[in-house]
Amino acid sequence: MNPNYPLDCWYVAATSDEVGSGLLGRKLLDRPVVLYRLESGEVVALEDRCAHRGYPLSKGRLDGDLLVCGYHGLRYDTAGACVGVPSQPHVPYGVCARAYPVRDEPPFIWIWLGQPGRSSLHSPPQLPWLSGEGWSSSGEMVCLAANYMLVHEHYLDLTHIPEVHPEETPPGLEELPALDHVSVSETSVTYTRTLPPAELADWEAEATGLPRDREYKRRHHGTFLSPAILAEGWQIDGGDGQPYEQARIHAVTPESPTRTHLFSWFAHNFALDRALIGRHLHAVMAKVMREDVAVLEAIEATAGYEGSAAGIHLTADAGVLQVRRIVARMLATETGRTSAEADRAPRSASARKTARPG
Amino acid sequence: MNPNYPLDCWYVAATSDEVGSGLLGRKLLDRPVVLYRLESGEVVALEDRCAHRGYPLSKGRLDGDLLVCGYHGLRYDTAGACVGVPSQPHVPYGVCARAYPVRDEPPFIWIWLGQPGRSSLHSPPQLPWLSGEGWSSSGEMVCLAANYMLVHEHYLDLTHIPEVHPEETPPGLEELPALDHVSVSETSVTYTRTLPPAELADWEAEATGLPRDREYKRRHHGTFLSPAILAEGWQIDGGDGQPYEQARIHAVTPESPTRTHLFSWFAHNFALDRALIGRHLHAVMAKVMREDVAVLEAIEATAGYEGSAAGIHLTADAGVLQVRRIVARMLATETGRTSAEADRAPRSASARKTARPG
Amino acid sequence: MNPNYPLDCWYVAATSDEVGSGLLGRKLLDRPVVLYRLESGEVVALEDRCAHRGYPLSKGRLDGDLLVCGYHGLRYDTAGACVGVPSQPHVPYGVCARAYPVRDEPPFIWIWLGQPGRSSLHSPPQLPWLSGEGWSSSGEMVCLAANYMLVHEHYLDLTHIPEVHPEETPPGLEELPALDHVSVSETSVTYTRTLPPAELADWEAEATGLPRDREYKRRHHGTFLSPAILAEGWQIDGGDGQPYEQARIHAVTPESPTRTHLFSWFAHNFALDRALIGRHLHAVMAKVMREDVAVLEAIEATAGYEGSAAGIHLTADAGVLQVRRIVARMLATETGRTSAEADRAPRSASARKTARPG
Repeated sequence: MNPNYPLDCWYVAATSDEVGSGLLGRKLLDRPVVLYRLESGEVVALEDRCAHRGYPLSKGRLDGDLLVCGYHGLRYDTAGACVGVPSQPHVPYGVCARAYPVRDEPPFIWIWLGQPGRSSLHSPPQLPWLSGEGWSSSGEMVCLAANYMLVHEHYLDLTHIPEVHPEETPPGLEELPALDHVSVSETSVTYTRTLPPAELADWEAEATGLPRDREYKRRHHGTFLSPAILAEGWQIDGGDGQPYEQARIHAVTPESPTRTHLFSWFAHNFALDRALIGRHLHAVMAKVMREDVAVLEAIEATAGYEGSAAGIHLTADAGVLQVRRIVARMLATETGRTSAEADRAPRSASARKTARPG
Repeated sequence: MNPNYPLDCWYVAATSDEVGSGLLGRKLLDRPVVLYRLESGEVVALEDRCAHRGYPLSKGRLDGDLLVCGYHGLRYDTAGACVGVPSQPHVPYGVCARAYPVRDEPPFIWIWLGQPGRSSLHSPPQLPWLSGEGWSSSGEMVCLAANYMLVHEHYLDLTHIPEVHPEETPPGLEELPALDHVSVSETSVTYTRTLPPAELADWEAEATGLPRDREYKRRHHGTFLSPAILAEGWQIDGGDGQPYEQARIHAVTPESPTRTHLFSWFAHNFALDRALIGRHLHAVMAKVMREDVAVLEAIEATAGYEGSAAGIHLTADAGVLQVRRIVARMLATETGRTSAEADRAPRSASARKTARPG
Repeated sequence: MNPNYPLDCWYVAATSDEVGSGLLGRKLLDRPVVLYRLESGEVVALEDRCAHRGYPLSKGRLDGDLLVCGYHGLRYDTAGACVGVPSQPHVPYGVCARAYPVRDEPPFIWIWLGQPGRSSLHSPPQLPWLSGEGWSSSGEMVCLAANYMLVHEHYLDLTHIPEVHPEETPPGLEELPALDHVSVSETSVTYTRTLPPAELADWEAEATGLPRDREYKRRHHGTFLSPAILAEGWQIDGGDGQPYEQARIHAVTPESPTRTHLFSWFAHNFALDRALIGRHLHAVMAKVMREDVAVLEAIEATAGYEGSAAGIHLTADAGVLQVRRIVARMLATETGRTSAEADRAPRSASARKTARPG
């Protein structure tokens, strides 16, 4: 099937912690990538494939800042240029592994796998919940067997919460309203949703310390920032002037058309001095994420048998539909650009292939 | 590959016992199906796929007689119509999961996955051995990695018994004669076979209590009743006026073109008051069935490499060839009907698709 | 993908030891083959597929020199002709399993899976290291998940040794020179390589008993004898008039386009009276082979994603490129011959298919 992910986008390749002193090989957007740190601490990403026989460079070793292939010892510099071949005095012209632009912005390392020249026109989205003052955050990465758009659509329509996470659903909110409002920019979609007053779920009461015998107003909002990232947040109005905000950041990186790396992060801005509450919330969110993954993998596993119909849409899908439009437009733009270049420069087939990496 | 199973046929979907108070999800003819019982005890079968996002309905829950999707809580009635969406006041027009005709005739639940309107023109075959007076029966279901026609052809040609089940072969019958007679109707094939007098195999002697130092006449017959079911029976003439009849009922339901649900049932009409004999025979037949499955999976595993020739036919294949003709005719009829309808009603591609489920 | 292995070639099917009193089923060049010995000790190879229903003959049994199918008991003679069907008096005309020419030349059994008439025009290559006087040899067979040409190319370019087998690399030879010389015949390629003087690796010192505090000259040579076999050898000039030669014989038999049976054999011609040294060398070579397999499987696993480029060539690939030319020529000849025959004899499609087995 044709991949449904844009290439021209900053995706999360790994967490900053994952790239230490070794070599990290990972498949991203169906391309093998090797990530490592220079002695300066800077992160480098190369195509994980030696130009000679295709051996994964991630199975080789570092010699200072040079990456040495574990097969015949070819040596690559930080731009991916081969600078040494042990069995001969000169390096043949043009031997290289593709280098990908990366940005190390903890907790994430971002990668640009699309047209190299376009990477500087874009930036990874800002995620103040994960780096800013006043928030405590944690997270984990899983690789799940589902297309990345299923992940986005899952978090764009939170009316699944009562069925998928009944233990975490506040009493009285078993039937959630659809979205209040969806606002759309050229590249992003934001929904908001105001929930009817309801008591606290157990985990909320434990986390906030708010009294249980009252009803609280909640506001929920979420933003599709790019095909790589979706941020959702919710506030409990505790009536005590405190914010009680929580956020989940979903970094969604296709591994292949049917598998996705999900970097699932959580942040809160209250009780920051109490580590136990942070751990409690982390455990709740980890459980929720596992339940999400089970749903998404079940959908992917049964998708597309003969005679299966396209899904119908509900009011709650207003955000989903806007996001589908944005992604379709991005894909059409990439395809169009590739076609236009092909028209302009009708060189050899392999030259055209190089014009658009991958 | 193109499926070689007719859709317009009653297939066994499950045993009656399997469908209790929960939801049973099962793939039948490459379609996901969910089976459950209403409070009245009636069985319902729906497409196992929510019309909204495709989540398997079998992972949801029952609320009285309503089936609630485990993702966003859509509620389906017993005809598969969506009658409630928690996140909005009204249900969009036409939201439904396909409902399949079912018949609960213990020990089996039958399903019709073809043209819904044609289900009433046919009935599941009568299986008096499994439900009638004077017989004791038991069985089990396995899912094997072989096309369903391999199963039929296996049981239509019993000259495999001496090689595949040497321990169960009566002494002196190591070389079995081919069929005596094959009679054919439009939709069924029956073979009969008279065996030369022979002593009892150990398991027969233990089951019947007949003396071992004699030879007995045996008659064997089998009927392909439909692509879903094959019944075979054999009689030992004990010379004591008793019948000593045994029957094996093979309910053969394709899961996919390369996998088959086999409901393997056994019945006998003697020593009905002795449970131990029933258990003995059940154990013998279970062993025989496992040996059958091993053979069929070995054939499927090596089928169709480059240069492999089509099989040749033996005298013993007279029944097999007649059954192949019947199935080919059924498939041609289904294809022709679909084409004719397409000619008559040249609507949109998706409308035509709906005209023939799957 | 189109297989890249010639059919008209003697390949190693098994070791002589593997074919004992039983039936050995093995997939070779994507064809199922059954191997067994007659009472005379002669080896026979048939297509591992009964002509009737396709059951693997290797799951049957031997009755004297007749191979009996384990399904319906069809009996095949040593030429693959069916000579008995238990359920009927006569054998239908022309029922047979294809017979393949074999040669039993210990330690290997060779098979010809191509045009039967051409087998006598060729012979399996002589492997004096494995059978001749003055050598001690041992080996083992593994099945690895990589195309057979990756195996050949691996052993045609030994500049991988310092990276892949650092523990076995003599000190001072961490950067190996490329080939000195490549000589090419119509069907074979030989490379030679003279190594700069260097001390012994630990395993070499243990095997040869030569003093460690000296430098030794080594010569390395390898020959691609056919798509089925590559032989490499190396000599240490011990300065004591002794030869100190070692050889590795790689019998490379495609199982399928992505899997290969590798018969990895090793021989040495010194210290033949000391079994411990033979076992020591066998253990070293077994470790080396496992390291080779890991490299080859890693390359196969990542081969051919979208956008991956063809590999570039180094000086050390001079032998590889010559071998690729030979194999390409063999494939073209086979294809051309098949086309020519098709032109000459435009019979039915199935008749043409038979003209070239497989």
